[in-house]
Amino acid sequence: MEDKNFSIHTDSGFYTDMYELAMAQAYYKNGTRDVPACFDYFFRKLPYAGGYVIFCGLGELLPLIESLHFNSGEIEWLRKKGFDDNFLSWLKDFQFKGTIRSMPEGEIAFPLEPLLQVEGSLAEVQLIETLLLNYLNFQSLIATKAARIRYAAGNRHLSEFGLRRAQALGGISASRASIAGGFDSTSNVYAAKMYDIEVSGTMAHSFIQSYENELTAFRKFAESQPDNCTLLVDTYDTLKSGIPNAVTVAKEMKEKGHQLQAIRLDSGDLAYLSKRGRKMLDDAGFYEVQIVVSNQLDEYLIKSLLDQKAPIDVFGVGTSLATGQPDAALDGVYKLSEINGKPKIKLSENIQKVTLPGAKQVYRFTDDAGSFIADAIALVKDQIPDKMIHPFDPEKSMTLDIKKATPLLSPIMENGKSLLENYHQNDIAAFVQKKLQHLPEEHKRFNNPHIYKVGISEPLHQLRSDLRREYKI
Amino acid sequence: MEDKNFSIHTDSGFYTDMYELAMAQAYYKNGTRDVPACFDYFFRKLPYAGGYVIFCGLGELLPLIESLHFNSGEIEWLRKKGFDDNFLSWLKDFQFKGTIRSMPEGEIAFPLEPLLQVEGSLAEVQLIETLLLNYLNFQSLIATKAARIRYAAGNRHLSEFGLRRAQALGGISASRASIAGGFDSTSNVYAAKMYDIEVSGTMAHSFIQSYENELTAFRKFAESQPDNCTLLVDTYDTLKSGIPNAVTVAKEMKEKGHQLQAIRLDSGDLAYLSKRGRKMLDDAGFYEVQIVVSNQLDEYLIKSLLDQKAPIDVFGVGTSLATGQPDAALDGVYKLSEINGKPKIKLSENIQKVTLPGAKQVYRFTDDAGSFIADAIALVKDQIPDKMIHPFDPEKSMTLDIKKATPLLSPIMENGKSLLENYHQNDIAAFVQKKLQHLPEEHKRFNNPHIYKVGISEPLHQLRSDLRREYKI
Repeated sequence: MEDKNFSIHTDSGFYTDMYELAMAQAYYKNGTRDVPACFDYFFRKLPYAGGYVIFCGLGELLPLIESLHFNSGEIEWLRKKGFDDNFLSWLKDFQFKGTIRSMPEGEIAFPLEPLLQVEGSLAEVQLIETLLLNYLNFQSLIATKAARIRYAAGNRHLSEFGLRRAQALGGISASRASIAGGFDSTSNVYAAKMYDIEVSGTMAHSFIQSYENELTAFRKFAESQPDNCTLLVDTYDTLKSGIPNAVTVAKEMKEKGHQLQAIRLDSGDLAYLSKRGRKMLDDAGFYEVQIVVSNQLDEYLIKSLLDQKAPIDVFGVGTSLATGQPDAALDGVYKLSEINGKPKIKLSENIQKVTLPGAKQVYRFTDDAGSFIADAIALVKDQIPDKMIHPFDPEKSMTLDIKKATPLLSPIMENGKSLLENYHQNDIAAFVQKKLQHLPEEHKRFNNPHIYKVGISEPLHQLRSDLRREYKI
Repeated sequence: MEDKNFSIHTDSGFYTDMYELAMAQAYYKNGTRDVPACFDYFFRKLPYAGGYVIFCGLGELLPLIESLHFNSGEIEWLRKKGFDDNFLSWLKDFQFKGTIRSMPEGEIAFPLEPLLQVEGSLAEVQLIETLLLNYLNFQSLIATKAARIRYAAGNRHLSEFGLRRAQALGGISASRASIAGGFDSTSNVYAAKMYDIEVSGTMAHSFIQSYENELTAFRKFAESQPDNCTLLVDTYDTLKSGIPNAVTVAKEMKEKGHQLQAIRLDSGDLAYLSKRGRKMLDDAGFYEVQIVVSNQLDEYLIKSLLDQKAPIDVFGVGTSLATGQPDAALDGVYKLSEINGKPKIKLSENIQKVTLPGAKQVYRFTDDAGSFIADAIALVKDQIPDKMIHPFDPEKSMTLDIKKATPLLSPIMENGKSLLENYHQNDIAAFVQKKLQHLPEEHKRFNNPHIYKVGISEPLHQLRSDLRREYKI
């Protein structure tokens, strides 16, 4: 990762919302800027109507928090907007000095759980809100989509092709998160170089069209890269022209000691065409030539193709992956849970939107084989809970075996310095797959997945009830 | 715009797909790199099940094409990947020298029309494909969403709040495109400074929670910025606590010669609460205090609120705007239409996916009042068409009055240099609103909008038919 900080805002504190600066100024003026505070990062709604989220984005976020500062042009811009000189003197020297406890990157997470908690002085923990949400929401959204597609694709090769439909520069983070979630390669050259990801690329229809005929185009491409040649066979007529021409070129390559790597189908009925294509290749003795497919794929289409036993070796997935369709966003939020040692809540008419107060820990309970049973959210200061309560229905509870509990949050940043060295996407990917093996199948299916049990400890439940009474008028 | 080129890839040619480089190398080796070629940028499917697209993104794209080059680290990386030394020598000195004809930024566009055509040597026009698609697809998606929301909101103030859910660095382009499409301000400080956009910001629930009570929090915020104070009133109880406390603070501010600017509602039934809030403010004599609302808004919710006569002055729109929900992508493509003076098509079993050959012009036909009637796609070398044919049903045709035709594509780049000076988003926004006034209402409605007529000229129809026969085996 030679360009570790690829971001435009390595010399900027401005990748944020205006209200963070307005609040920081008010804290400064009111003398509350150094009051100790704790914020939780969590989400409420699972994307893709799915059963889980893959937590992702720390590898890009932490270096940005470490180096976060406001440059002199930004300070002057704020001065013109009417910000206070004393506040701006403080902001000019701003450095984040807080502590972050977090799930590891790649952990499987569920609604309401704090995935990450930030502790520090009020102004500094407020100031990183937007940056943190921007990075964690998006990469978690994409890593989750990638994991779903991996689940559908079994061990077939998966390549991310989404840059042309990515949301501007979001394409780089999307490539990283795709690999973390389970993809093998990307077409995005910038991301491939920066993150050392396997890069893949074939040809466009324009390449074929630019020659007098398809056979000539195939020959010219094979001459240009004889050891890495995938031919796109659907420009004119897949079965009558594309595949026969590919077979001709495969024979010519073989005579010269090379091997055609694959054919690519990018339109039409991919189940039908891949079966016909496989037979045509096999009949010509090209058993080793692979079949790559693309064209508006997602986890549902891939599952359907494989249910139909389509003989596909490689799936290229673009738009739906790089933009996280159909959700396009994870609804992660960042909420104050404690200030000056006092737990705090945000009320709502809807109990589901009342926040969980206090500095918390998440415990995951497993069975003897390591399979996930349930997660319990508890206060840091409490014991591991031996019972948890449904977060919105206090009459429902569940007994827990504290010998089978693992805490999920651990320190990853102290005094503004990251404690972690390694965020390589391949390591995250291995961690994700290991964890997913322990998530029971019923939470992974696409249609109405079983809801994973997340509860709260009795002391946390009691604290929330007490605070609701206290604040409610 | 002091940081005109905000992008991370101002010193990189790598924000592209690998296959562009693979094809460029093959063109180089085959001696076809300098063959003149023409590519079209167009889309097939209208986003949001809507009636039109706002074309946006040139202002960010053209400077990137002008400065596009491959740095020495990138050349060496490609060498390690097996690229040819001679090709890399050529690539090291690469500069785009082509010509671009385009609709103006902010033009209203429809499916199948070339929004932009790129002419130049084959290798160079191929190499810019991914970059061009990435920028134009995303900004057109967002500008179109913004225009839809503006249509719903009438003349209320619209502020873009999407950074926390934006797709990584896509948040900057999203803010620019939001303004171009009709928004008034953004919460995104980076975009506000870079593009000189009005910046807006209020406070988060955490601000309120960090004080011992809501009234104190309101007072402290009002002290910090007495001339720009919006109070968030839903942290504990909107009607019993938030608005009464805001009224108390408004009175205190008035005594000191200041004026509360607004209250903000971020949860609950916004129609009911805004009506109750308006009455409470008016009863206290604060007719001028505005009501700002936010919380998962989109064009449909805003329309519903205003249909219910909710007295709302400002809408803050986040996720749905900054990510273009529910589509998340415009399906724009870049297809070869001519090579070496010869028109080309890509075939498909589906006539709707057969491309339109040749260098083309789009003519817009209007009535005497300037209202759009229909668009006709014709060959550049032809006359203005006096008749157009349905693109997929040749038996349907329409007579056109050539005196009422305006060509939409004009040169914006020659020999790799932009011909345009100004891309200020406010100018684009004014152009968009002027054009939308001439688009009949039935194309702007949200439910089953009337399909705008786009046809092809008889010579273009004939050329496509001839090429289909020629290429079909």
